[in-house]
Amino acid sequence: MKNIAEPAKDSLIIYSGGLDSTTLLYEERKRISLAVTFDYGSNHAAREMACAKYHCEKLGIEHLIIDLNFIAKHFTSSLIAGAEAIPEGNYAESNMRSTVVPFRNGIMLSVACGLAESRHLDRVLIANHGGDHAIYPDCRPEFIRAMDEAMHAGTYQKVNIAAPYTHITKADIVRRGAELGIDYTQTYSCYRGGELHCGRCSTCRERHEAFKNAGLTDPTTYEN
Amino acid sequence: MKNIAEPAKDSLIIYSGGLDSTTLLYEERKRISLAVTFDYGSNHAAREMACAKYHCEKLGIEHLIIDLNFIAKHFTSSLIAGAEAIPEGNYAESNMRSTVVPFRNGIMLSVACGLAESRHLDRVLIANHGGDHAIYPDCRPEFIRAMDEAMHAGTYQKVNIAAPYTHITKADIVRRGAELGIDYTQTYSCYRGGELHCGRCSTCRERHEAFKNAGLTDPTTYEN
Repeated sequence: MKNIAEPAKDSLIIYSGGLDSTTLLYEERKRISLAVTFDYGSNHAAREMACAKYHCEKLGIEHLIIDLNFIAKHFTSSLIAGAEAIPEGNYAESNMRSTVVPFRNGIMLSVACGLAESRHLDRVLIANHGGDHAIYPDCRPEFIRAMDEAMHAGTYQKVNIAAPYTHITKADIVRRGAELGIDYTQTYSCYRGGELHCGRCSTCRERHEAFKNAGLTDPTTYEN
Repeated sequence: MKNIAEPAKDSLIIYSGGLDSTTLLYEERKRISLAVTFDYGSNHAAREMACAKYHCEKLGIEHLIIDLNFIAKHFTSSLIAGAEAIPEGNYAESNMRSTVVPFRNGIMLSVACGLAESRHLDRVLIANHGGDHAIYPDCRPEFIRAMDEAMHAGTYQKVNIAAPYTHITKADIVRRGAELGIDYTQTYSCYRGGELHCGRCSTCRERHEAFKNAGLTDPTTYEN
């Protein structure tokens, strides 16, 4: 007899292996049928993917890597232009705008939506958060809302988006993750993609700030 | 001195090489900076792409082919499952539903949107038409409207969609194209992807009906 307390596996998660989506993976693990990592040739893809693989294996969740190589070939962004192109300093618009991969979340959500429809799943999870709004237009609530409507209208399944971190900060996210006992040393954020987190790029600084603001010890080993 | 009557090249077109998008290519040629053909491993991709290449060269428009090979690998649809999987008969939901590539227009529009943002273009053309609504949820006006909003909200450029055929029929489209003198023998529709149009699959029938309903001679050579 099926345990009625067990939720249905109705969800697919867009899962990078970073801090935010790893937290969402653990929070929603009971409903997740498939985790999808998109490889768009970013400097830190290999490091992130190794982390994604680790957590999916640990939780027994199917993990799929989708290659979006056309992004590296035809799009403009410092995130795919090599480690030297990544700016240093705080996580502010002036620093980070060059790292924007145009409409990245739109592309990942669309492909995830088609995959969900193919597998009869009707819920796509994405871990965009409040701190990203200023810099990334495709992380904002108005984008998520319209995209959700498009996916709902454009599928037989009436696929919808769940983006539970849209209005909270990265500090809130690590606080939730710490309560779940997530090992954050097995997540990767640095936009430079080195062996260790560089500690100087804005993503490393944002990561460190999140632990600090959450009142937690940052378990990350930084280069400097 | 720049001729002020000449419109700005502000548009990118999603261009398959089929009858509908070829008509749109000719109608909007003065504003089109880039034509993008998506290869998702459909049975008729090679035939369509040869037609797309022909018209782009003729009009002097840059033509880009984007490989979406993850669709053939991971999605479910008879359109990518070989010629034998394509149903025969009229263009009705019962026949055509198996040919739906889940959220195909959502995926093509998202990638086109990111490309447009990369190239500082702010208008994406797509040739979805009224006859497709019943079968393809991602051809319907409510999908196009929501997706347009998502692209607008999710980009710095505020990219928008122009889908001028959303409310007209394929017969209306070929009537417009005939006025422009388009050579429709250089377009390809058959979902089977053979040397000649098969004349039996629903897409061939739809093509033939369009010319008939427009009061035009169908210039296509069919197998039977």
